Amino acid sequence: MIHFSVKSTERTQFIDITRDVAEALTGISAGRGYLFLSVPHTTCALTVNESYDPDVAADINAFLNRLIPEGYRFRHAEGNSDAHIKAALIGTSLLLPLEKGELLLGTWQGIFLCEFDGPRTRTVRAGTLL
Amino acid sequence: MIHFSVKSTERTQFIDITRDVAEALTGISAGRGYLFLSVPHTTCALTVNESYDPDVAADINAFLNRLIPEGYRFRHAEGNSDAHIKAALIGTSLLLPLEKGELLLGTWQGIFLCEFDGPRTRTVRAGTLL
Amino acid sequence: MIHFSVKSTERTQFIDITRDVAEALTGISAGRGYLFLSVPHTTCALTVNESYDPDVAADINAFLNRLIPEGYRFRHAEGNSDAHIKAALIGTSLLLPLEKGELLLGTWQGIFLCEFDGPRTRTVRAGTLL
Repeated sequence: MIHFSVKSTERTQFIDITRDVAEALTGISAGRGYLFLSVPHTTCALTVNESYDPDVAADINAFLNRLIPEGYRFRHAEGNSDAHIKAALIGTSLLLPLEKGELLLGTWQGIFLCEFDGPRTRTVRAGTLL
Repeated sequence: MIHFSVKSTERTQFIDITRDVAEALTGISAGRGYLFLSVPHTTCALTVNESYDPDVAADINAFLNRLIPEGYRFRHAEGNSDAHIKAALIGTSLLLPLEKGELLLGTWQGIFLCEFDGPRTRTVRAGTLL
Repeated sequence: MIHFSVKSTERTQFIDITRDVAEALTGISAGRGYLFLSVPHTTCALTVNESYDPDVAADINAFLNRLIPEGYRFRHAEGNSDAHIKAALIGTSLLLPLEKGELLLGTWQGIFLCEFDGPRTRTVRAGTLL
């Protein structure tokens, strides 16, 4: 399991990490069929979605903010339960297919770290499977 | 990694692909423990849910349409951000256990392709893991 | 694939099963890199989220109950389509990294079975991958 860092600059933000993931793969993918990615956090998530038009990720982020408002009356004293709910809905790990050691993504697909309680520095863990 | 096609006939629709998946498994599952499924798309998804009563999938589809309306004011010019949001929430891949080369599903479980921006022909990729 | 049981006591409830999972791992994780968990059900789910403050899981559960109300007019005669929708959104399986045979979780992460149609006895399946 290797890892790399991602810095967010907003409270909520979708960050395209496709290039970081491709770089992390170098040297660990030989002879392996799948890439596993996860975050050791509980207020951010990972997803695959369109990376061609950045407005798509911005729309998803904005809609989630409307659906799960920060100001909602929660029990958790830290006041960031909206971020935990979003992380539960999107998910904190991904499994992606490899072909000859490289990411096999669809034409429009990119990999995003979804920040729901930034700005922060986040860790992404990466490992491969047979 | 093999693949097969699924045709949707509506804009939003849950299609039971359990049989297609079982057929795709023939010949690729020997000695393997898990099946990986993914779509190389960003406006459809894969999920496991009840396949016994088709009303269940129809209810999930209808509720998602109400929760994430097509007509919402989005930035993305193509006008299908609702589909991207649904794909992010449901997810574009699945990992399923195999037993003696066959799908190990629960009694009521089936595998669904969730079309959120059809009608279209979609690709499902399938591969196995140790 | 091994399995263990989890008993819920409420209709909807997030149950921390991190300890059960760690126990289930004993003896099956040697030399393996990942843990796969799934439920053979369609009205409960599995997720990773904060286990330190139990209010977080309570907030997620309560918010999902508000977002996807039990009383909504569904087609499915059994009347529990809200539970099926939640299961589709959260997901019925998890893939988790192992290190030297033990769960590699983040500091605040725990594993939860999300009961959406209890009280019931649920089955959790566990297996490892290379």
